[in-house]
Amino acid sequence: MNIGLDMMGGDFAPLEAVKGLALFFAKTNTDIHFTLIGEEIAIKDLLHQHQVPLTNIELVHAGQAIGMHEHPTRALKEKPTSSIALGFKLLATGKIDAFISAGNTGAMLVGALFSIKAIEGVTRPTIGAYIPREDGSLGLLVDAGANADCKPENLSQFATLGSLFVEHILGINNPKVGLINIGEEEGKGNLLAQAAYPLLKENEHINFIGNIEGRDILLSKADVMVCEGFTGNVVLKLAESVYDIIQRRGIEDEHFDRFNFEMYGGVPVLGVAKPVIIGHGISKDLAFKNMISIAQRMLETDLMQKMKEVFVQKL
Amino acid sequence: MNIGLDMMGGDFAPLEAVKGLALFFAKTNTDIHFTLIGEEIAIKDLLHQHQVPLTNIELVHAGQAIGMHEHPTRALKEKPTSSIALGFKLLATGKIDAFISAGNTGAMLVGALFSIKAIEGVTRPTIGAYIPREDGSLGLLVDAGANADCKPENLSQFATLGSLFVEHILGINNPKVGLINIGEEEGKGNLLAQAAYPLLKENEHINFIGNIEGRDILLSKADVMVCEGFTGNVVLKLAESVYDIIQRRGIEDEHFDRFNFEMYGGVPVLGVAKPVIIGHGISKDLAFKNMISIAQRMLETDLMQKMKEVFVQKL
Repeated sequence: MNIGLDMMGGDFAPLEAVKGLALFFAKTNTDIHFTLIGEEIAIKDLLHQHQVPLTNIELVHAGQAIGMHEHPTRALKEKPTSSIALGFKLLATGKIDAFISAGNTGAMLVGALFSIKAIEGVTRPTIGAYIPREDGSLGLLVDAGANADCKPENLSQFATLGSLFVEHILGINNPKVGLINIGEEEGKGNLLAQAAYPLLKENEHINFIGNIEGRDILLSKADVMVCEGFTGNVVLKLAESVYDIIQRRGIEDEHFDRFNFEMYGGVPVLGVAKPVIIGHGISKDLAFKNMISIAQRMLETDLMQKMKEVFVQKL
Repeated sequence: MNIGLDMMGGDFAPLEAVKGLALFFAKTNTDIHFTLIGEEIAIKDLLHQHQVPLTNIELVHAGQAIGMHEHPTRALKEKPTSSIALGFKLLATGKIDAFISAGNTGAMLVGALFSIKAIEGVTRPTIGAYIPREDGSLGLLVDAGANADCKPENLSQFATLGSLFVEHILGINNPKVGLINIGEEEGKGNLLAQAAYPLLKENEHINFIGNIEGRDILLSKADVMVCEGFTGNVVLKLAESVYDIIQRRGIEDEHFDRFNFEMYGGVPVLGVAKPVIIGHGISKDLAFKNMISIAQRMLETDLMQKMKEVFVQKL
């Protein structure tokens, strides 16, 4: 297993990525190989400073970096030796088995879609986001912003992909799938939700429980919460802002501490043929450590193969 | 000024409506006439018990009531002597100047659209919802769920209607209008948001400040926050659920207390020719008192006439 890590992505690069690696090694007895992509000299110094064991670590120098606000497609084209472009090249050619970055989200998404391609049968890969629930568990909101306009079939595929991720990575058996909607009964909602409902009901690969409403998103009613990426992104950013308000109000509460979305590490791109994980720009060491753990688990459980098998059945 | 109040709407009818009236009279020295619609004998008893002054109060007996979960159109048709059906009849014929109910939301909306009709030039009336902000003020989210599928022109009209309400009823001068979107720059978003942006920019009747994201909804970035009713309803119910979680966690905080959406009373139907206010089913006395105050202010500021003038200019 060889996990590629973009060392130049995020607001605190490459320091926090190195600290995340150190944290991972401190907590895990592992024989994973790592390929670290970025400014070789700076990274070497930091690895040394933070006493990261160099066995099983390979450095790949990246002479360029893509900024957080650069245009994704243009940046990937114009910066072929950037850490993100190199990472996708290594992933596409099988030199690494998974790729993690806290860099430019758009560039990561474009790279995943165009370098790695979708799993056969998946029309629109998606990005999920974790939602903390009061019972201490995590749910998955999917799509969290990758697909602003969707067809009903897309939502049904998001449900399948999300269910597999939640079952194998978050460890919830037979996860409940809810369609985010503006009413509980079948037939409610906008045209998209009305048309998606019967497709979800017929989808044999998921445990569909029906519609859920905005008030159910932060509860445990459904483990996989499906919507198009417009609503999903607004909902996710609103939930993130609740944590900021809680902080500003000086409220200390164990449950709301879990609204610190940074601690979950990155969100997976679901539906592409290899594991790609996109971190928040503000990712710190814990986030990097968690992203590595998620990639490890995605590889160990052979999640991509499980996804391929489901979609092959459907073709 | 004659305000019609459905005494049978809501989970605590007619008691809380009577208590709301008592609260209104206790705090306001008023010569408003009230028309109370519902079970005459029960209401008379309660008015007496709660020492509501009977001057300027007229009772209209309603022999039927529409339940919270009845089908709106069918219920209005089959129950012509229900409090909601009678209320709209009184409003349409000019016997009352405004109509307030905490009853079946769908029936209130259908009644408003079909008995009162839209202001000339308004293609889709809308429902707004108040959003508490950290600075203590209220913003308006519009549409909060009445129109699940929208055209770009609808969003521009929601912005105009919402701005007039926020300016004259919430008292914010030249209110800032933001388009709820999944990115800050023009050109971001789903097809609807992309097409609505230039219309909002060209709309001379509003102060458009551009896109706002999910994280800005609970802040004061925009005073009027525009989106279609699907996203709006999910956002509103999510925000309402935050209050419930705060309560369950035993957190006491002045700002989050304002997330108790019940205290704001009802939300106005905007774009119909007469003031119609729809309350939450769980409305208590304070909510009823606040709904009466909003109706009073809508009549005193002649808000409907101001709306008509703007849309006449546009025809």
